[in-house]
Amino acid sequence: MPETSSRHTESSLLRKWLEQYDEVRSQTLNLVEPLSPEDQMVQSMPDASPAKWHIAHTTWFFETFILTPHMEGYAPFNARFGFLFNSYYKRLGGHPHRTIRGTLSRPTLDQVRLYRAHVDNSIHELLHCGASVEVLRLLELGLNHEQQHQELIVTDIKHAFWVNPLRPGYQPGQVRIVEASAAPPLAWCCFDGGIHESGHDSCGFAFDNELPRHYTYINPFRIASRLVTNKEYLAFMADGGYSRAELWLSDAWDHVCENGWTAPLYWEQAGNDWTQFTCRGMLPLNPAEPVCHVSFYEADAFARWAGARLPHRVRMGGCRRFHREHRQNIRESAGKRKLSSQAACPGSTTG
Amino acid sequence: MPETSSRHTESSLLRKWLEQYDEVRSQTLNLVEPLSPEDQMVQSMPDASPAKWHIAHTTWFFETFILTPHMEGYAPFNARFGFLFNSYYKRLGGHPHRTIRGTLSRPTLDQVRLYRAHVDNSIHELLHCGASVEVLRLLELGLNHEQQHQELIVTDIKHAFWVNPLRPGYQPGQVRIVEASAAPPLAWCCFDGGIHESGHDSCGFAFDNELPRHYTYINPFRIASRLVTNKEYLAFMADGGYSRAELWLSDAWDHVCENGWTAPLYWEQAGNDWTQFTCRGMLPLNPAEPVCHVSFYEADAFARWAGARLPHRVRMGGCRRFHREHRQNIRESAGKRKLSSQAACPGSTTG
Amino acid sequence: MPETSSRHTESSLLRKWLEQYDEVRSQTLNLVEPLSPEDQMVQSMPDASPAKWHIAHTTWFFETFILTPHMEGYAPFNARFGFLFNSYYKRLGGHPHRTIRGTLSRPTLDQVRLYRAHVDNSIHELLHCGASVEVLRLLELGLNHEQQHQELIVTDIKHAFWVNPLRPGYQPGQVRIVEASAAPPLAWCCFDGGIHESGHDSCGFAFDNELPRHYTYINPFRIASRLVTNKEYLAFMADGGYSRAELWLSDAWDHVCENGWTAPLYWEQAGNDWTQFTCRGMLPLNPAEPVCHVSFYEADAFARWAGARLPHRVRMGGCRRFHREHRQNIRESAGKRKLSSQAACPGSTTG
Amino acid sequence: MPETSSRHTESSLLRKWLEQYDEVRSQTLNLVEPLSPEDQMVQSMPDASPAKWHIAHTTWFFETFILTPHMEGYAPFNARFGFLFNSYYKRLGGHPHRTIRGTLSRPTLDQVRLYRAHVDNSIHELLHCGASVEVLRLLELGLNHEQQHQELIVTDIKHAFWVNPLRPGYQPGQVRIVEASAAPPLAWCCFDGGIHESGHDSCGFAFDNELPRHYTYINPFRIASRLVTNKEYLAFMADGGYSRAELWLSDAWDHVCENGWTAPLYWEQAGNDWTQFTCRGMLPLNPAEPVCHVSFYEADAFARWAGARLPHRVRMGGCRRFHREHRQNIRESAGKRKLSSQAACPGSTTG
Repeated sequence: MPETSSRHTESSLLRKWLEQYDEVRSQTLNLVEPLSPEDQMVQSMPDASPAKWHIAHTTWFFETFILTPHMEGYAPFNARFGFLFNSYYKRLGGHPHRTIRGTLSRPTLDQVRLYRAHVDNSIHELLHCGASVEVLRLLELGLNHEQQHQELIVTDIKHAFWVNPLRPGYQPGQVRIVEASAAPPLAWCCFDGGIHESGHDSCGFAFDNELPRHYTYINPFRIASRLVTNKEYLAFMADGGYSRAELWLSDAWDHVCENGWTAPLYWEQAGNDWTQFTCRGMLPLNPAEPVCHVSFYEADAFARWAGARLPHRVRMGGCRRFHREHRQNIRESAGKRKLSSQAACPGSTTG
Repeated sequence: MPETSSRHTESSLLRKWLEQYDEVRSQTLNLVEPLSPEDQMVQSMPDASPAKWHIAHTTWFFETFILTPHMEGYAPFNARFGFLFNSYYKRLGGHPHRTIRGTLSRPTLDQVRLYRAHVDNSIHELLHCGASVEVLRLLELGLNHEQQHQELIVTDIKHAFWVNPLRPGYQPGQVRIVEASAAPPLAWCCFDGGIHESGHDSCGFAFDNELPRHYTYINPFRIASRLVTNKEYLAFMADGGYSRAELWLSDAWDHVCENGWTAPLYWEQAGNDWTQFTCRGMLPLNPAEPVCHVSFYEADAFARWAGARLPHRVRMGGCRRFHREHRQNIRESAGKRKLSSQAACPGSTTG
Repeated sequence: MPETSSRHTESSLLRKWLEQYDEVRSQTLNLVEPLSPEDQMVQSMPDASPAKWHIAHTTWFFETFILTPHMEGYAPFNARFGFLFNSYYKRLGGHPHRTIRGTLSRPTLDQVRLYRAHVDNSIHELLHCGASVEVLRLLELGLNHEQQHQELIVTDIKHAFWVNPLRPGYQPGQVRIVEASAAPPLAWCCFDGGIHESGHDSCGFAFDNELPRHYTYINPFRIASRLVTNKEYLAFMADGGYSRAELWLSDAWDHVCENGWTAPLYWEQAGNDWTQFTCRGMLPLNPAEPVCHVSFYEADAFARWAGARLPHRVRMGGCRRFHREHRQNIRESAGKRKLSSQAACPGSTTG
Repeated sequence: MPETSSRHTESSLLRKWLEQYDEVRSQTLNLVEPLSPEDQMVQSMPDASPAKWHIAHTTWFFETFILTPHMEGYAPFNARFGFLFNSYYKRLGGHPHRTIRGTLSRPTLDQVRLYRAHVDNSIHELLHCGASVEVLRLLELGLNHEQQHQELIVTDIKHAFWVNPLRPGYQPGQVRIVEASAAPPLAWCCFDGGIHESGHDSCGFAFDNELPRHYTYINPFRIASRLVTNKEYLAFMADGGYSRAELWLSDAWDHVCENGWTAPLYWEQAGNDWTQFTCRGMLPLNPAEPVCHVSFYEADAFARWAGARLPHRVRMGGCRRFHREHRQNIRESAGKRKLSSQAACPGSTTG
């Protein structure tokens, strides 16, 4: 994103910011494009939110933190929305209990889109008159915040459609059958220990919990050269993975028994084969793809079975660049971030 | 409703049945007319259902019990709807857990309305070729079943809109300010004891749990000449009704304390006055109207406070005709049936 | 129990009352005799109470309702016990939440027994000086109340020992192997309809909910000549009783599925045979005995399977005398009362 | 504890081990000495265990991991205890659900003490014949395991007695009134950053999660010279600490509101003063003592209020020696370990 340097930045810079703003904001609307107003109402569990709520809440952010305090004479689009679409900022004065987000049929989707348009127009108007460094900082924060919610929209709608017995596809028009090519052979990558810089470096945006830049010490370790594949996970299952108490943490085993776990979330057996719920509906499981939507408990049990253990987060950071180059076979965005931090890397050991 | 007498009834009779059918079915659509597709998705608690589910489930009834078994060559509109819109008839093979009715964005409202139209057309087609007594019996049952769900649509949407912090009105266009006239003075009506016939008599429709006709013995009693008014209930509240343990059943008192009850459901204090959530939004409480939406626990506590007790159901039956003549001041349908069986009739005593 | 006639009754009458008092009170202690202080601490579910609590609470009754208001100069044994051993009389000022009764290691069992002795002595002292009709009425109520809790002691300790994986026997010394004789053949007893007097008649003690004496009308009916046997219930199970949704109420079927019910409470399969947890530990199931510890849902499903239905309570009253004469084969007190009101009487029909 | 060097260690070494064993084992019995059999039954919440369970489970450890596999001809004291007193080692074949530990009146306390004596005798017998390095390693592990449970016995009985409305004292005989002297003034201790060795060093016992020895990097920081006092925490409360949403994490604030938190666990207001539940019953709060039994949420809110933040665990390790020298004013063991890792150190900052 563009650099911010002076109190009132030049118009060319502001134009770039507005382009960026429009791009992020329209990407959100692109994501909900395949969804009906009814689809955008669904809250399938307390931890998920309806798509309509996401598009309202991300708008609330710009109104609450930029327009209201920084635009002279700005009047909120609707006096109740400040309460309705606050997520959890208690100091702003409360919000509906998060479990009832799925019951908010009013405001309607149309009203929420008018709210978006109103706020977008006001942001344009504000920036056309110049903007302080603080406003640009908040704008950048708001856009990154909105991108987080874009991920949640996909994650949440996937779960919403999974709960529906009809198992509709979120993007059914985009189906593309991919040949199940083999994953590359697994190798071990060695990393030397040593002092390592962690946290965000100074250039570009960072959330506050990515700062400050600091040192950590990483002990020498080896890590798998790629993510665990569905095929490898199926081998764990075939070897009784879900019925051998000794592979699981004690708490995890209680979960397995109480919830009758026999496979990862979104997997379903169809005859002898396995299928997987995706954004394009139920599809055959591709054995070459990375295993996805496993919980920490499952990843941990898999790693124990494989004679390895899960990498620490700090090591994941150290070898993230490596993985980035090997992710060309990952085609679906939902759950990927989770996967990269939770997947079991078989055979990882410390020196 | 028309009488059914021979195996294949005459066309004039069938015409009357179809008129009846069309009238009940269109009344359901009239009820959801003020609601958006989003409104028809809301399930505000496990015991309530979304309006869309109601209009689908009542259609499912006609398809499942009439068209599929009795219309030759009938193919279900959608093979999955038999499961989706079954309420709790386990012998028909399962249904979604009732708590997830509010997540079913698919089928869409449009699809559900096509489903209704398809079934309506098929019912017309079936009856145009004549109908057996059994089909007409099921038709009558289905229409009464649909009328039950019409009551639920109103009850459920009222609660759905109450949960929404915006408190929208279900029928906002129909607001009509009514003068708060005084209720008639309360008198005591005496009933002699004796053998009393109970259950439905032979003419017209009855649900199976209203049969068979049988005798009961009613001991002599007195009952109030009208329902308890909001004004009388306010007197109970002003006298510490919700803070005096001795007025409540032990279980009830636990409920009062754990849930912080201080007034009936849908009541809200506005300054010194009370308002009440209605199908037309929040309105001032009319002191002359019957108190509404009180739980059994509250009715029982009120009756104890008033030195009376709640009437047995069988006595309510005995004096229902009486009350019917005094209900001219009742203007809102939701919750009325509940009220008539739960309201405290002060001073009722057995001889 | 003795009659009470004048304000200050004669000493011979009071002696009889004291004998009665001593008999009931010592019967309670007899019931807990086989139990260690630890056994008397167990609360295996919120609806059950520890034996120690029962023996304290029954004592609390006499102290609270007789000694404190009616004995001049009486000082409570312990000022905190009024709160600790109140069950649910809110107007007396609160009580511990019923779910924590099992955590009250203090007062100790020894202290509770001293409490009993203190109250017993005081009751003797009070009655030696004469007693008003009101005191005798309360004494009679207290003794009947204590007998109710005697039943609960047995019911609750049975459940407490069932939850313990060791399945200890409550009265292990009293084991007596009974020959599994056949139950008498089932016949149908016809009862004419008509007006029937219900509620307690004037002589002897009655709880307030057994009054007043009133008329009811019973329609003519037939009822089975004896209770359903274990053998008959086993036939229901062998015929797939627990896996056929059509035999169960819809709510009941949800219970069956969610809790994995396959047999009545306290039954356990041992190889091909069934055993039953009793007050003397696990014993072979006697096919000739009445089935016991079935829930309403199970009794209802059994009755439907048998082509019959459950008797109304009022009919049970009508034929109670009949059953009393056929209960000679019932050897265990726990759960019997429940059984008699819930057991399915196959083939009962109304005329 | 003594060093273990050869396969069959010398008798003087074994004697030292047995002394150590006897000392730890008898310390456990000393801890339960003030408790009646009933007290040792109480489980006041799912995360706590009855004292009787602790003394049985620690015995189970020695039987399961030492006697059964390593002592020829050893027969378990009771075949069911292996299941009954397993805590969560699933691979050993299951255990009772942890929520029912408080219902296990059988085995009795007497039987559990016989179990202890039997295992103690067998351990003595085993070691008198020499012991392998593996047996001594397990013995050391078992003794450390038992010391962990000694802490839990005190923690759990404190909570058990707190739940009891009588609030009994665990060690009432040991009351000693301490003058409320002032805490030393708070200063800031600076620590340089750098590579730091973490994990247990090679000599002496360590649990497996304290290994292996590894390097970490600690950034420079300052930390308070002593723990937060009750007086400082009272200032936070007086300044509206529990009613200012902005001081709390969002989740924390939900907890505060839903549970009505207004003070730390075990605190109770008595008029204008505060009292605190201790192992000697309710005592006046000593303002000079470290605040105790605050949750992470409370510690975090306090730190935010104080303009500081909570120390990372690794920094706590770094300055543990420092604190150890300043703990002379800590007089009560329960909760101390928790305190040291959770207490807010006002003003700690990273360089």
